[in-house]
Amino acid sequence: MDASVVLVEPEGPANIGMVARTMKNFGFSRLVLINPNLTEESYSYAVHAKDILENALVLEEFGEALELFDLAVGTTGKPGKNYIPDRAPLMPWELRETLEGYLGRVGLFFGRESIGLRNEELAKLDFTVTIPTSDSYPIMNLAQAVAVVLYELAKKRPEPAVEALTPATRKEKEQLVKTWAELLEVLNYPKDAERREVFVKVFRRFVGRAILYGREVHTLMGPLRKARLRLEECGDAER
Amino acid sequence: MDASVVLVEPEGPANIGMVARTMKNFGFSRLVLINPNLTEESYSYAVHAKDILENALVLEEFGEALELFDLAVGTTGKPGKNYIPDRAPLMPWELRETLEGYLGRVGLFFGRESIGLRNEELAKLDFTVTIPTSDSYPIMNLAQAVAVVLYELAKKRPEPAVEALTPATRKEKEQLVKTWAELLEVLNYPKDAERREVFVKVFRRFVGRAILYGREVHTLMGPLRKARLRLEECGDAER
Repeated sequence: MDASVVLVEPEGPANIGMVARTMKNFGFSRLVLINPNLTEESYSYAVHAKDILENALVLEEFGEALELFDLAVGTTGKPGKNYIPDRAPLMPWELRETLEGYLGRVGLFFGRESIGLRNEELAKLDFTVTIPTSDSYPIMNLAQAVAVVLYELAKKRPEPAVEALTPATRKEKEQLVKTWAELLEVLNYPKDAERREVFVKVFRRFVGRAILYGREVHTLMGPLRKARLRLEECGDAER
Repeated sequence: MDASVVLVEPEGPANIGMVARTMKNFGFSRLVLINPNLTEESYSYAVHAKDILENALVLEEFGEALELFDLAVGTTGKPGKNYIPDRAPLMPWELRETLEGYLGRVGLFFGRESIGLRNEELAKLDFTVTIPTSDSYPIMNLAQAVAVVLYELAKKRPEPAVEALTPATRKEKEQLVKTWAELLEVLNYPKDAERREVFVKVFRRFVGRAILYGREVHTLMGPLRKARLRLEECGDAER
């Protein structure tokens, strides 16, 4: 998927810079600006993403931007009460699903801070996306709305930087639970076997909820196993 | 789930205001500020969320904030190379799953713009969350990071404001596909029945991908059905 961010007549210079920064945060590089209020302040807010502003395509007309894309997606602050059937918005996660595997050129159009996209502009776009927000304050800051949409589109678990960050496999988690069960066994605690079963179940649920990494499982398993071995030795010594 | 946002020594007054705004956007209301650089500018950036700043709890010590919560979650800019097993971060969507149904008091701790949370602070938190970002520019603006985490936690399809926004049922979508098939039938186009099948399949896939609303299905079905009826009448007239 090959998406550009299109800001339609952005009014705040700082917002333009913050949008560039968030684009770089999420690995997007192509910015199109239509009649932007682009100033030195924009560059200062871009911080380490000044290159995105420098390479931005600055246009004068909405129509020129439309022609760049095979699929033009609009964003709208709130579907609101005035529902227009051909403008029923997607949620950001639905946009991600829709774009999965799509090979065309995608433009994500964000409107002015004050009034968003005009109705005649929305009518020319393929469909719209909305971020679900609270009724008591639905209108988001422009750069934050861009951040949320790009986060959703770029969403994936990063490649583990180190082996340690590989998620625990089912087998590893089962080993951990088994180690716990063996410890209870050698402790003979709780004494009642059925209650021990319950204790193991609770531990299994705990492991499941914790979303452990592989190395963590081994880190947890070590002491439990050690404890069991020591307890077995003790048992032998007592005998 | 009952979550507060905790800003640890936020340095930019504008960021504090933008965080308040994004909290209100996503329906969060409790803000805790530790040694904040809170100024008039913060209130101006909060726009319609000044009440959140007015009601914020301002503390001097990190430890005081910790005591407010049953579960204290930290955020970190980048897991990075220095992996520490007990600090393997969750992704935001994993945080949502982890907190689902949790009834305790949750504090979401965000660090300073410059250096984030200190190691000794991270060590006191239950676990950390990280937003997956690009290696070429991993550090997000504070308010945008808050926006992404709160968006993920608040994520749900809003209740449809009007009946029109009810997602199309499987049955409705099948009716639409059937209407299309009937139209091809009466058009006798394509002539080859097997190729017609293929055309219907393509249409079905199209309907599936489009994530339609109920009313849209009916809006689309109307003209197709009308066309078929007209074509049938024509056929009769010609005979």
